[in-house]
Amino acid sequence: VVFFATPDGVGQKEARSWLDKGTKVIDYSGDFRFNDFETYKGYAARIEKKEEHASPDLLPQSVYGLAELHRDEIAKSSLVGNPGCFAVSCILGLAPALKGDLIDIETIICDAKTGVSGAGKTPSPTFHFPARHEAMNAYRISGHQHVYEIERELGLVAGKEIKVTFTPHVVPLSRGILTTIYAQMKAALDIEAVQDAYEAFYGDETFVRISGPGTLQSSADVRGSNFCNLSLNVDERTGKLIVVSLIDNLVKGQAGSAVQNMNIMFGLEETAGLLRPGQYP
Amino acid sequence: VVFFATPDGVGQKEARSWLDKGTKVIDYSGDFRFNDFETYKGYAARIEKKEEHASPDLLPQSVYGLAELHRDEIAKSSLVGNPGCFAVSCILGLAPALKGDLIDIETIICDAKTGVSGAGKTPSPTFHFPARHEAMNAYRISGHQHVYEIERELGLVAGKEIKVTFTPHVVPLSRGILTTIYAQMKAALDIEAVQDAYEAFYGDETFVRISGPGTLQSSADVRGSNFCNLSLNVDERTGKLIVVSLIDNLVKGQAGSAVQNMNIMFGLEETAGLLRPGQYP
Amino acid sequence: VVFFATPDGVGQKEARSWLDKGTKVIDYSGDFRFNDFETYKGYAARIEKKEEHASPDLLPQSVYGLAELHRDEIAKSSLVGNPGCFAVSCILGLAPALKGDLIDIETIICDAKTGVSGAGKTPSPTFHFPARHEAMNAYRISGHQHVYEIERELGLVAGKEIKVTFTPHVVPLSRGILTTIYAQMKAALDIEAVQDAYEAFYGDETFVRISGPGTLQSSADVRGSNFCNLSLNVDERTGKLIVVSLIDNLVKGQAGSAVQNMNIMFGLEETAGLLRPGQYP
Amino acid sequence: VVFFATPDGVGQKEARSWLDKGTKVIDYSGDFRFNDFETYKGYAARIEKKEEHASPDLLPQSVYGLAELHRDEIAKSSLVGNPGCFAVSCILGLAPALKGDLIDIETIICDAKTGVSGAGKTPSPTFHFPARHEAMNAYRISGHQHVYEIERELGLVAGKEIKVTFTPHVVPLSRGILTTIYAQMKAALDIEAVQDAYEAFYGDETFVRISGPGTLQSSADVRGSNFCNLSLNVDERTGKLIVVSLIDNLVKGQAGSAVQNMNIMFGLEETAGLLRPGQYP
Repeated sequence: VVFFATPDGVGQKEARSWLDKGTKVIDYSGDFRFNDFETYKGYAARIEKKEEHASPDLLPQSVYGLAELHRDEIAKSSLVGNPGCFAVSCILGLAPALKGDLIDIETIICDAKTGVSGAGKTPSPTFHFPARHEAMNAYRISGHQHVYEIERELGLVAGKEIKVTFTPHVVPLSRGILTTIYAQMKAALDIEAVQDAYEAFYGDETFVRISGPGTLQSSADVRGSNFCNLSLNVDERTGKLIVVSLIDNLVKGQAGSAVQNMNIMFGLEETAGLLRPGQYP
Repeated sequence: VVFFATPDGVGQKEARSWLDKGTKVIDYSGDFRFNDFETYKGYAARIEKKEEHASPDLLPQSVYGLAELHRDEIAKSSLVGNPGCFAVSCILGLAPALKGDLIDIETIICDAKTGVSGAGKTPSPTFHFPARHEAMNAYRISGHQHVYEIERELGLVAGKEIKVTFTPHVVPLSRGILTTIYAQMKAALDIEAVQDAYEAFYGDETFVRISGPGTLQSSADVRGSNFCNLSLNVDERTGKLIVVSLIDNLVKGQAGSAVQNMNIMFGLEETAGLLRPGQYP
Repeated sequence: VVFFATPDGVGQKEARSWLDKGTKVIDYSGDFRFNDFETYKGYAARIEKKEEHASPDLLPQSVYGLAELHRDEIAKSSLVGNPGCFAVSCILGLAPALKGDLIDIETIICDAKTGVSGAGKTPSPTFHFPARHEAMNAYRISGHQHVYEIERELGLVAGKEIKVTFTPHVVPLSRGILTTIYAQMKAALDIEAVQDAYEAFYGDETFVRISGPGTLQSSADVRGSNFCNLSLNVDERTGKLIVVSLIDNLVKGQAGSAVQNMNIMFGLEETAGLLRPGQYP
Repeated sequence: VVFFATPDGVGQKEARSWLDKGTKVIDYSGDFRFNDFETYKGYAARIEKKEEHASPDLLPQSVYGLAELHRDEIAKSSLVGNPGCFAVSCILGLAPALKGDLIDIETIICDAKTGVSGAGKTPSPTFHFPARHEAMNAYRISGHQHVYEIERELGLVAGKEIKVTFTPHVVPLSRGILTTIYAQMKAALDIEAVQDAYEAFYGDETFVRISGPGTLQSSADVRGSNFCNLSLNVDERTGKLIVVSLIDNLVKGQAGSAVQNMNIMFGLEETAGLLRPGQYP
């Protein structure tokens, strides 16, 4: 297996030679997150790449690497596009509500807060320690490229086109994504309906933990782990579903998901290597 | 002038003796944020106090101390209820949109992120340095007591009852509130309409600064200042207004507003002492 | 085995009943760090406890739990006093220099910097997040209780009485101790002599890693690990030995050492459970 | 007046044209910290610059800009070399002890801890937020270029050559330098002698504040200010003087000292603009 922990544009050029040798490939960029060329073009436009792909013929055999949604396809595939970190937190937080038709799809808002490691290792003035130690900000309001895969995947779950309002924020911690998800509930539904839907959807998934209202959900609860914690809440006064979705952006949001996918692709125990991840940084 | 930098319940007992002597009073708690007893009772229920007030007869003469909305009343009053920090950021971010009838009032969401000083000076396990250094969390989902004054004030602006979905979060910096506000735009309105409405509403207010889409808004821009920075955005794909509202919770969110109110009450220059606040901590 | 992760005064009362049943005991406090009553009394005076011990007869069978110095005694003992975190960093940084007679014993200075978790879990105004986020300080200058065990252990290594000038500091990170150790070199010795002495002393110790001058030594290198990193330097202009000693105060500085001691006491692999410690917090 | 807030090598080329016009110059680099060419060459060798100076003839008229030591010369000069931040903290902490002949000059150790803003605004992997948030380190052990000016200035105070062992450390806060200074006391001296010497030396200096043993000295006490706080301690067991010297590296350690120098050069109130500095970042 080869992991392409590389920017957009690398895996699409290099994957073929490995696949031809029978090596399985897991790519961390957006290169193989969309299994048809038309969809990929929409993504490419978002990231200001030319709307081309070096290996469009490989796209149909690629699988979106979110095990909780695509486990069976991942098991059969040799080419997995590992999801974006924000996308993992939003998709896992919303999929059951859409599957269960609990919410008005015109009203979905994802307000995401990420630690600084989500921005990668390249130093920049924005993430220089003295500039960031006591600062938080919103950025790319309405324009983050992860929205595209969120809408694509949720659309597949819902069976219809989904649009999401998504705002990313950077806050001064190293690791963690906390996404607060809002949507208008369909009339006459309550928190029990929500909990039932989420528990039914995730069943005995190892890496998704569901909790009810009133639980203090902290990014520290998932730090260094491959878990996604979902806290379910309903604001009865306004009829809003509020889901707090927590992941470690470096684990379930990236390398942990990749290992989980590898385990599935090779028929290994899905949790192998993931219950006690190392501590870095 | 006496500032009651005290918890709920103190000012309502002690204010009278000062007012009787002709001293002006600015109270930091919720004791005088509501100028009629019925409204106060709703608030008291939220904070699990008995639904009583030690001086209900003083309530009608109190004024909600947000200068940008109540300057003239503050100038004439001897008793001001200084606003809650979250409330300042939400109300300033939403008032022009409601005044201008730009948004669907059923769809308002305020997602607020605060530094830890917003929780006060009392040490607790949650805010012990090692527990907080690398942790963020949501809390009191749908149940924060500031919602009540937000809805009250915005209702007065809109001329009708307003309900707000509000989620507070704590992030690991000392100072600053960043509230991301979402609401469905009325059809056929665009970013220009939004900007016009906000500029018209705030005119030459000293302490409100408006910026358009694409501006990187950071809590560092308002740190240690009495300014509220509002970044206006429209997500054209989903028709959502997105306002990023930034204040320093210890200045415009509390002590700075109190000084601004004092200046108004005494006919001083409104900005006196507020353009170069001290640095603490 | 019972671990007493308790304050001074608890283990000395409770250990006996366990020892009588044949259970081995590892105590985290100062109760069993000194194997004779006279020495213990000196320590007790430092921490303002009465100069008494609930089980003075147990002291002679107790062993100071620093495996690199007392492995054989630990293996034979049922009662181990786990060392203080600062003490581990100072003793490991100085023992080879004293054993090799490299330094003037009148000139030893240990300048220690610790993360906040070293102060324990009890919230206090000093360690409240907003007060600590942007603050560092020295404390208990010349008076920290760990000095006593440092001097005791180093005296045993050197074969004569040792006095150490020790200043602890708290800096705003969660974990880690970095102690910068200074001492006047004996004439005619150089960095090679130092390196030889340290490598000879530690031989193939798993948990001590020695590096030479010019290595950037960061607390992050030992974070979450049971390692002690020692960087050896000589200031040729002033003839000073400078050792930078790094540990994670929660691992080699406490729980990791305790597990290492347990492994030795039970004849287990000494590194069992210690090469991939969990991530907390 | 022109402030050269520029790296080494710029002021020495550009200062002359300003001086020729009668403009006063304050340079932040090492270009004018040494008023004779021979001394400058020693410094230049340290920073790996060619041992040349673009304007060696200007050096004799330059003054080292530490007001507490050179106020009268600064007042008469048009060319001031603003001191290095570490140097300010070390020199102010040691000058009275050397003037009063209190310490053995062979034994001076300065262990300095700085916030990250001391490293400047250029982003780098070492100061990238995720790499620094939970990390501290020592660097340039025995080799920091500020040692040269520390030894130069202290030698002038003492009237003989002084050598200092100096170790800088970076800790994860934005601002502040805490230098812990150690030296062997001359026999028969005690804390009272130390306090007398320091109080006599600094007399009514506005920006130096002296405190005795047992005071908790935190970098927060000087944050955003032009003060240097000196905490005086004697370790009676080892006969060591221990001075904790605290400054804000961006104020007394740089821009504040520059303003103080400007005030003196122009005959202004020395504290003008310095008692309420702005808050950045």
